[in-house]
Amino acid sequence: MNLLDFLTPSPEIAKREGPDDTIVISSRVRLARNLKNISFPGWATKQDRIRAMDLMRPAVENLPQMKDGFSTIMDELSPLDKQLLIERHLISREHAVKSAGSAVVMSKGEIFSIMINEEDHLRMQALLPGFQLESAFNKIDEVDTLLEKQLDYAFSSKLGYLTACPTNVGTGIRVSAMLHLPGIVLAEQINQIIQAVNKLGLAVRGLYGEGTDALGNFFQVSNQQTLGEEELQILERLQKVVAQIVEHESNARTLLLEKQKTAVLNHIGRAYGILANAYSMSSKEAMNLLSLFRLGIDYGFFPNTIRALSDELFLICQPAHLQKLYPNTNEPEERDIVRADIIRERLKDIKGPITK
Amino acid sequence: MNLLDFLTPSPEIAKREGPDDTIVISSRVRLARNLKNISFPGWATKQDRIRAMDLMRPAVENLPQMKDGFSTIMDELSPLDKQLLIERHLISREHAVKSAGSAVVMSKGEIFSIMINEEDHLRMQALLPGFQLESAFNKIDEVDTLLEKQLDYAFSSKLGYLTACPTNVGTGIRVSAMLHLPGIVLAEQINQIIQAVNKLGLAVRGLYGEGTDALGNFFQVSNQQTLGEEELQILERLQKVVAQIVEHESNARTLLLEKQKTAVLNHIGRAYGILANAYSMSSKEAMNLLSLFRLGIDYGFFPNTIRALSDELFLICQPAHLQKLYPNTNEPEERDIVRADIIRERLKDIKGPITK
Repeated sequence: MNLLDFLTPSPEIAKREGPDDTIVISSRVRLARNLKNISFPGWATKQDRIRAMDLMRPAVENLPQMKDGFSTIMDELSPLDKQLLIERHLISREHAVKSAGSAVVMSKGEIFSIMINEEDHLRMQALLPGFQLESAFNKIDEVDTLLEKQLDYAFSSKLGYLTACPTNVGTGIRVSAMLHLPGIVLAEQINQIIQAVNKLGLAVRGLYGEGTDALGNFFQVSNQQTLGEEELQILERLQKVVAQIVEHESNARTLLLEKQKTAVLNHIGRAYGILANAYSMSSKEAMNLLSLFRLGIDYGFFPNTIRALSDELFLICQPAHLQKLYPNTNEPEERDIVRADIIRERLKDIKGPITK
Repeated sequence: MNLLDFLTPSPEIAKREGPDDTIVISSRVRLARNLKNISFPGWATKQDRIRAMDLMRPAVENLPQMKDGFSTIMDELSPLDKQLLIERHLISREHAVKSAGSAVVMSKGEIFSIMINEEDHLRMQALLPGFQLESAFNKIDEVDTLLEKQLDYAFSSKLGYLTACPTNVGTGIRVSAMLHLPGIVLAEQINQIIQAVNKLGLAVRGLYGEGTDALGNFFQVSNQQTLGEEELQILERLQKVVAQIVEHESNARTLLLEKQKTAVLNHIGRAYGILANAYSMSSKEAMNLLSLFRLGIDYGFFPNTIRALSDELFLICQPAHLQKLYPNTNEPEERDIVRADIIRERLKDIKGPITK
């Protein structure tokens, strides 16, 4: 089966809506769990990893949430397909380099994804559009409850759930939100925000997680540690901080429009002008320009009907998506040309920013 | 009289055509002459300068070429008007800072301009669109002949015409062509060309002459010295070199289109996209982007009917032109906004580059 036939088509995924989705792109909750009496994947022999996988995979595949889902061992995925799943945030970059004994199971519609033998035996996530962390938690909590009935989790009454890395011990929960913060970036307040969020014990990362750049003004905010706090405390803390950042971004956008309208229009107009007329464009540049284009839609400078188009372009402009959708684009230079062609073609009937 | 009412309106000046004018913007011949028995302007007292001016100015004003012309002493021009004349290439930057005893007389239509008491007593030029150096020489030679009948020129049978600076002694002639060389610049051959031209004893300068940047891929080629060669020899040498550069530029453009069409389209498309959608733009950026836009017109990527519009934008995007045409643009930031507004407005019905 072609992975693209399983994944939600990009125009459909771009249409997904959620609360506050002009700023909060997605909400994600993931839980780390391990089996009792089997070495953590990093320590396990190949045989142990395969044994653990064979124990877990049927249980995961048979979850009602995974009906019509997609299950594969990592060995069977091409490098390109692995990259595609990273771009969809369905597997981690670490999981992509795993081989024998590692697998991934994903639900139709991409809400659920469960990695088997990543850093932990199980890494399960629920990913929802917009600002709905609680809902994402409830969804993955149901999955966890169902799996716990069948699998023997490593659990200490003193420490909580045991995990490969001490930062995950306890609840094994990571709550994160992907935020689009062009206003805060344009207002040159992003470093302050990152510092403030860090002081609250939360991490700020780039588009593809730990150690990646904040391409396209996307920032991922998540909890750093899981020990000594209840799931709901962590969730509540994240919700509060994200709500504050949303308010800050919203204020920054309003203030920019009031005080620096020409500068804002200049940024957005130039971004649109280049997107609509370039004949070669790197993925990085596309992300950064599309970010300003999306801000223009949020401001009402472009018709709201093209919001889904803008989000679709974000998705398909990523290297693996492009290479998968368009044959003969194995080389970055070829992709840069095709990427520019696609964007130009899609924007050809859309006019530059219009203000009332 | 408002200077702008005298100068050719920018749409009219942009419509001027001449041979090879996709590459040779204009041809200019200027002659340096001095009066006998009166100190050169740099050495003269204020009284001497005024005496010399009073001798020369009526003769210049009464030339048939200056019928309906414009004559003014430099003291009466505002700093803005002086800058306007520099941008039109009607006076030199050096002449703009002259005061008592200096004047300029220009013909209706701007072909002739005669500076009085610049570095020499007389600096007279004929400026024509396109590649027509010989015609420019013949025109200024007629003026010179008429003036020589009335004024007593400083002339040495051994050295020729005497001038303030030794580089002008002899014929006092400077022949120059303003070239638009985006092809050679894009092909990264401009430094070789400049070196080759220098070796032939010719100078390559920027848009506003000696010591200025090559804004907008404009380069001015002229002879360096005037001693020991006849006027016609100098003229012929310039013609030959300019013809070679024209051929080189033409070949570079053809080759770029054949071998690097996407890269060329990418440059031109982006330039157009920014011009058509920016809300703030410096004069320097406008020149550089308009240069690529003009190349796009030369390539046939845009309708040929907008050639004059593009040339007009070159003219009115210069700071003094903008400030003169649009009130309340004394500050560079204000001009940057108005400049972007004008360009956006003029380009709003023009589509991005189209290739057959």
